[in-house]
Amino acid sequence: MAPALRLEILARSRATGARLGRVTTPHGSFDTPAFMPVGTRGTVKGLTPEQVARTGSQIVLGNTYHLLLRPGPGVVRRLGGLHRFMGWPGPILTDSGGYQAFSMADLNAVDDDGVTFRSIVDGSAVRLTPESATRIQNELGADIIMAFDDCPPADVSERGDPGPVRGAGRRPLPGREHSERLSVANERTVRWLERCRAAHARPDEQALFGIVQGGTDEGARRWSAERVTNIDLPGYAIGGVAVGEPPEDIARVVRFTTPLLPEGKPRYLMGVGYERDILSAVLAGVDMFDCVLPTRNGRNATAFTPGGTLRLRNAAHAEDPSPIQEGCDCGACSPLTLEQGVSGPDEARKGLARDHFSRGYIRHLFMAGEMLGPILVSLHNLRYFQRLMSDIRRTVRDDDWQGFVRRWPQAAAGWTPSPSSPA
Amino acid sequence: MAPALRLEILARSRATGARLGRVTTPHGSFDTPAFMPVGTRGTVKGLTPEQVARTGSQIVLGNTYHLLLRPGPGVVRRLGGLHRFMGWPGPILTDSGGYQAFSMADLNAVDDDGVTFRSIVDGSAVRLTPESATRIQNELGADIIMAFDDCPPADVSERGDPGPVRGAGRRPLPGREHSERLSVANERTVRWLERCRAAHARPDEQALFGIVQGGTDEGARRWSAERVTNIDLPGYAIGGVAVGEPPEDIARVVRFTTPLLPEGKPRYLMGVGYERDILSAVLAGVDMFDCVLPTRNGRNATAFTPGGTLRLRNAAHAEDPSPIQEGCDCGACSPLTLEQGVSGPDEARKGLARDHFSRGYIRHLFMAGEMLGPILVSLHNLRYFQRLMSDIRRTVRDDDWQGFVRRWPQAAAGWTPSPSSPA
Repeated sequence: MAPALRLEILARSRATGARLGRVTTPHGSFDTPAFMPVGTRGTVKGLTPEQVARTGSQIVLGNTYHLLLRPGPGVVRRLGGLHRFMGWPGPILTDSGGYQAFSMADLNAVDDDGVTFRSIVDGSAVRLTPESATRIQNELGADIIMAFDDCPPADVSERGDPGPVRGAGRRPLPGREHSERLSVANERTVRWLERCRAAHARPDEQALFGIVQGGTDEGARRWSAERVTNIDLPGYAIGGVAVGEPPEDIARVVRFTTPLLPEGKPRYLMGVGYERDILSAVLAGVDMFDCVLPTRNGRNATAFTPGGTLRLRNAAHAEDPSPIQEGCDCGACSPLTLEQGVSGPDEARKGLARDHFSRGYIRHLFMAGEMLGPILVSLHNLRYFQRLMSDIRRTVRDDDWQGFVRRWPQAAAGWTPSPSSPA
Repeated sequence: MAPALRLEILARSRATGARLGRVTTPHGSFDTPAFMPVGTRGTVKGLTPEQVARTGSQIVLGNTYHLLLRPGPGVVRRLGGLHRFMGWPGPILTDSGGYQAFSMADLNAVDDDGVTFRSIVDGSAVRLTPESATRIQNELGADIIMAFDDCPPADVSERGDPGPVRGAGRRPLPGREHSERLSVANERTVRWLERCRAAHARPDEQALFGIVQGGTDEGARRWSAERVTNIDLPGYAIGGVAVGEPPEDIARVVRFTTPLLPEGKPRYLMGVGYERDILSAVLAGVDMFDCVLPTRNGRNATAFTPGGTLRLRNAAHAEDPSPIQEGCDCGACSPLTLEQGVSGPDEARKGLARDHFSRGYIRHLFMAGEMLGPILVSLHNLRYFQRLMSDIRRTVRDDDWQGFVRRWPQAAAGWTPSPSSPA
């Protein structure tokens, strides 16, 4: 049986815990540290796969929860699997659906066997168990699939049991992290991981990753990391962070947990995040990230730049001829020269074609409700994150963190690197 | 003063009135017969200029009415003019805003000087006159600008005066075409054309086209054509057709009117249309077309194919692995191979990357409300129309209409060409 996934570590930072690597899957390789755009329903919103690839993205994420509800894993499988379905021939990772089943459903009931929730598409009752979540991901066919874990809302210990909680507005864990519910969840996650592994029907084609939970409590994290990594898997993730807690807590939990994961396997920090969170995690030795920020903020007219975000609906941009970011090579700041169709005076054409879309134009698109606004800012933001990752990879290789901090002040967020003390 | 526009006629069909040409503008050339995608608010909805160019589009249309209301012509001018603003370095045509002022405004009052209507953006009263419509188009800076004409709703002769009429739902002209209002409109259009020409501040950079009106009445069309073409301009348009009348009437009016326009100048049939309408007009000698059909239908999940339209929300497509159209070379039926970002096993990657988006996937995108659905079908439909035009141009050159009818049954719509009798 050939392994579904292989990590080569190509360089290690001497000054920090960061490492440069390359992960190879049945659908190609990606460089680490890697950022995965989120393609929730089989599409990175508003972009063609070609446009996504041009941002430098090498692996994308799909959401099992959404694809389960619509169009259903059988449809995806019969249309050739998720790669073929969404036209993305490179590596794909799917989550297990657990996070959404616990956080998005209006009604959910969890027991030792799994969770039942109401479909956001048609209101019907849907059941997910470790076995079904794994089987569904087997049908979708992603290169990396995630364990189905018990993820109670972050405010569980104040409320006793999970209730309706929506989206990312979950409160951080309070002081009493060792509530009954959290402890149950932590133990259940390990039992469920064994069941996921037993149910996994395509281990030679799909790499199953386990997920370490434990909230912001270091004891719970250590317990979870030991039990989860005791189960031999091709990679491990850190779950349950960046659910509303302050960045210092994210950094602390990640710094504590990452070294507890095996050195020779990919380490994936789920759902993170802002530039500073990514940098901090990279310095602790994390290899993989995903987040909706670049595309969700792109749709909301918020653009990332190395100096901070821009709100492009702001009236100040109405007549601003500048690009979102000077020197950026994205499809909004530096669109491709038209390749065909236009002929005529080459001088005028080339001069214009090399030009950027202005902030004033992009603001106009948002004010008029035109699709091209979200498209252009999503293109920019994804390219921004991929240039950040690319620069991080070069910096790991060269171990030149002083230069990195100058180029990415927003990511460094005040951090002053020194050769002896990692962030 | 250099002419703003030049038409070369490269070939004439012997069997029909069709001609093959090339129009050169300050921003490049386009081949005729030409189809112009509609970029109402400075964007062809959902597509980047690069994607539009890849469909084979060489000239696009912008709407003065919409750009006047938002962001305003001054903003467009200060951001470098419409080409620079929307990132389209090739030829652009703008309409005068008259059609929308008469048909879209909730309230409009027309007099001998112009029209006053309520802004759909902020409800304020807006005034358009021949002078202001021309000045606004001078600010926008398109290569071809249109005269401001009096366009009463198609049902005017039954109602006495124009009232609130929205969009394309206008009823065809009834029998009493020579109502007072229509006659006034026809005469006013000629007087306004003189005023547009007098107000035109950039005749060496922008070609002003006059518009022939007259509804479905041949006498009124002849009168209008004589008066309008009496004014020496770089091109002429046929307005007021395809506003709800049957295709036979469209064809009849166009066949009657087109030969009344100067042979050596571009002839533009405004707002048309379906494939059969385009073919019929080409055979009468029309050179330019624009229509929202490919993009509007694309957003509504309706795809054009040579054999007829497909409704992609239809449940029949749910698990259909076929492309919208076999053999189509558009960005949905034959997307570009990913150019960068993805590495790994070349075999698997190339095989997948050359594949099309399936009807099942596109249906899923529409059912889930994903932007990529409208984007892919708009790409397909625009490419479909541009392949139609490209095939029409080849057919004019070779005068092989039998072959054309076999390849485009929907466009031919039962027409049987013969060498001696044009359609």
